[in-house]
Amino acid sequence: MVDEGFRTIWLKPDDPEIVEIIDQRRLPHDYRIHELRTWQDGAAAIRDMAVRGAPLIGATAAWSLYLAAIGGKDILEAAAELLKSRPTAVNLRWAVERILRLVETASGDLAAVIRKDAEAICAEDIEICLNIGRHGLTLIEDISRAKDGGTVNVLTHCNAGALATVNWGTATAPIYLANQAGIDVHVWVDETRPRNQGSQLTAWELAETGVPHTLIVDNAGGHLMQRGEVDLVITGTDRTTRSGDVANKIGTYLKALAAHDNNVPFYVALPSTTIDWTISDGLAEIPIEQRDPEEVSHVHGISEDGLCTVRTTMPDTTVSNHAFDVTPARLVTGLITERGLCAASEEGLAGLFPEQATPE
Amino acid sequence: MVDEGFRTIWLKPDDPEIVEIIDQRRLPHDYRIHELRTWQDGAAAIRDMAVRGAPLIGATAAWSLYLAAIGGKDILEAAAELLKSRPTAVNLRWAVERILRLVETASGDLAAVIRKDAEAICAEDIEICLNIGRHGLTLIEDISRAKDGGTVNVLTHCNAGALATVNWGTATAPIYLANQAGIDVHVWVDETRPRNQGSQLTAWELAETGVPHTLIVDNAGGHLMQRGEVDLVITGTDRTTRSGDVANKIGTYLKALAAHDNNVPFYVALPSTTIDWTISDGLAEIPIEQRDPEEVSHVHGISEDGLCTVRTTMPDTTVSNHAFDVTPARLVTGLITERGLCAASEEGLAGLFPEQATPE
Repeated sequence: MVDEGFRTIWLKPDDPEIVEIIDQRRLPHDYRIHELRTWQDGAAAIRDMAVRGAPLIGATAAWSLYLAAIGGKDILEAAAELLKSRPTAVNLRWAVERILRLVETASGDLAAVIRKDAEAICAEDIEICLNIGRHGLTLIEDISRAKDGGTVNVLTHCNAGALATVNWGTATAPIYLANQAGIDVHVWVDETRPRNQGSQLTAWELAETGVPHTLIVDNAGGHLMQRGEVDLVITGTDRTTRSGDVANKIGTYLKALAAHDNNVPFYVALPSTTIDWTISDGLAEIPIEQRDPEEVSHVHGISEDGLCTVRTTMPDTTVSNHAFDVTPARLVTGLITERGLCAASEEGLAGLFPEQATPE
Repeated sequence: MVDEGFRTIWLKPDDPEIVEIIDQRRLPHDYRIHELRTWQDGAAAIRDMAVRGAPLIGATAAWSLYLAAIGGKDILEAAAELLKSRPTAVNLRWAVERILRLVETASGDLAAVIRKDAEAICAEDIEICLNIGRHGLTLIEDISRAKDGGTVNVLTHCNAGALATVNWGTATAPIYLANQAGIDVHVWVDETRPRNQGSQLTAWELAETGVPHTLIVDNAGGHLMQRGEVDLVITGTDRTTRSGDVANKIGTYLKALAAHDNNVPFYVALPSTTIDWTISDGLAEIPIEQRDPEEVSHVHGISEDGLCTVRTTMPDTTVSNHAFDVTPARLVTGLITERGLCAASEEGLAGLFPEQATPE
C-alpha cells in the first residue's frame, strides 16, 4: 500500500550494484521486481515503460548513471543515450544534467558521489510529493466542507500516482492524504488508452491503499461532469511551460475542456522540476512523442491461460499514436506545486518560483 | 465492400423463415453470418449487440416481429420485450410502433404484411442514408475545393457506418460518396471504448471499401484538432431532441467540445427517425443506458490461439459504464438529414420537417 514505506525504485539491499524497480508493465496482474544491472537496463526500462511517470523517469536516469559509474562506463555516453529514451519528460533532462554537473567537479569515488545524489533525488521527490499533497489537500478539504462531509469525487487521468514518482505521486498525493485524514474521497479513474495506465496502475495503487474508486473509459468523464458527479479534476503533467501550458498524457486536453464547460475545477499537480522555464507556448514548443502503433492495436491483459496480449484490430490497420497533448493554461484552474497553489500563468508561477522567473 | 449490394440484414434466400445478419461481435477478425429463427433471437441480437446502430436496431426489430408472426407468437408480447432490449435508441420504438399500427388494421396473412413492411423499412433506410450521403457530400466537396483538392480529413466516433444501418451508414455515407467521386478523403477513426466499434467495425468497413483511414485512441482527437489535422467531424446519433441536442456514443460530447475550441465544423448525420420530437432538453430527458461492466474490464481480440478475451483490470475493480452522452445543440455546427442540412435547433429542424414541428 502507498504509505511512508512504499518505493518504486531502490538499491538492492544485499547487492548495492543492482537497482530494483517494480516492473509496471505487468501490473495489476503480477507484482514483480525487475533488476537493473547496467545503465542500458535503465535506459531500456525507461524506453519500454517498465518505469514511467516524469519524476520516476528522472530518478531512474540518475540511478542508471550510478550503474554506469560502478560499471566503469563512459558517463557522457550513457547520459546522451538516456536523454534519448523518452523525448517529452523534462525531468529526464533535469536529472541527467544535475548528475553531469556533479560529475564535472567530483573527485574520488564517482559512483559513491552519484549514488548519494541519486538517493537525494529520490528523497527530494518524496518530500516534493508530500508537499504537493499537503497543498492539494486543502482543495479537497474545502469541497468536503462545502458538501457537509459528503463524498468528494475526484477525476484523474493516466497515472500521476505513487508509481509515477518515488512515492505518493503528484495528482494522487492530495487524495492519499485526504484518505488518511478520514475525508470521504472517491476517485473516477480514467482507463487511459492506449496503455491503460489508469485501469492498470492507478486502480492498482488505489485498491492497494483502500481508496474508493471507480474505473471509467476515457470517453465518460464529460458525461459525469455534465451530471455533477465530478467535484474536482487533478492530473499530472510531463512538462509545463513557464506560462502554465501543460503537456500530459493524451486526452488530458479533452478533460480540461469538459471541466471548463461544466465549471468543474481542473488542477494540475506538479513538482517544479517538470516546469520548462525556457518555453512559453506549449502547443508550439513542446515536442509530442509518437509511440509504437502496437500500443493501440494490441491490448495486454489476463486470460485463463495467464498474461496474454490480443490484437483488437485487423493486422494491417494504420495507427497513429501520439502519447501526449497540450492543455492550454486558459483551461487550467490552478497548479498544485510543492510550494503551494498558483494560477496557471507566468505571474502565478513567478510568484512561487521568483528565482526561476528572472529574465535571462 | 460497401457498395450498392451490401446489406447488414436480409431474408435467407432459400428459407424465408430465417433472417440473417452479420454477427458484428466477431468483426473484424471473423466475418460470420448469424441466423435469427425466432423473435427472441432478434431481441437477443439487439441486446447482445450482434447488431447495433440505431437504424439497424429498428430494422432488426421489424424483422423480429415478422419472425414472431410466422411462428404464430403473440405480436404484442414480442413488441413489448423488443422495446426493452436497448433503452436509448429511438428507432427501436419507431419501428416497433410502425409495425404495431399495421398489425392493428391488417387482414389476411399477418406475416406477409409485416414482411412487406420490414422490407420497406430496409429500402427506406437505404434511401435515407443515400440522401444523407448526398447532402453531407457537399460539405466534403466544399472543403476539398478550399484545400485545392488536398486531403479532406474527417474524424468520426464509434460506428455510424454501413454496419449501423442497412447500407451506407449515416456518418459514413458522405465519406463513401466522396470516395466514389474521387475526392481525396481520409478518415480518423476513433477506437471508441469500451466496445471498440471504431477499431473493429468502422475500420473494417473503410478497409473493405478502400477508404484511407487511420486508427486513433479516443483521447487523441483533441490533439489532432489543435494541430489542424481535422477538417470536419461527422458522427451519428442514437437520439436527437427537437432542439438539436444529440445523444450518441459516450465520448461524442468531448469531441464536440474540442471541435468547438478549434473551429472545426462538427456535424451529426441522422435519419429523421432518430429525432424524438417529444423532447427538447437532451441532458434532462434522454435516459442513458448503463451497460455491463465487463465491456470495460474485458477486451476481445485475437491472439495466436484465435479469438480471445482478456481482462485488463484487477478482478474486483468497480466499473461504471454509461453507453451514451448528450452533446448540447450549441456545440453542433449542423445536422445532416435525408432532407438536407440544417442548424441544430428547433427552427432548423422545423424548417426541414414542418409536419413534425406543428404544436400538438
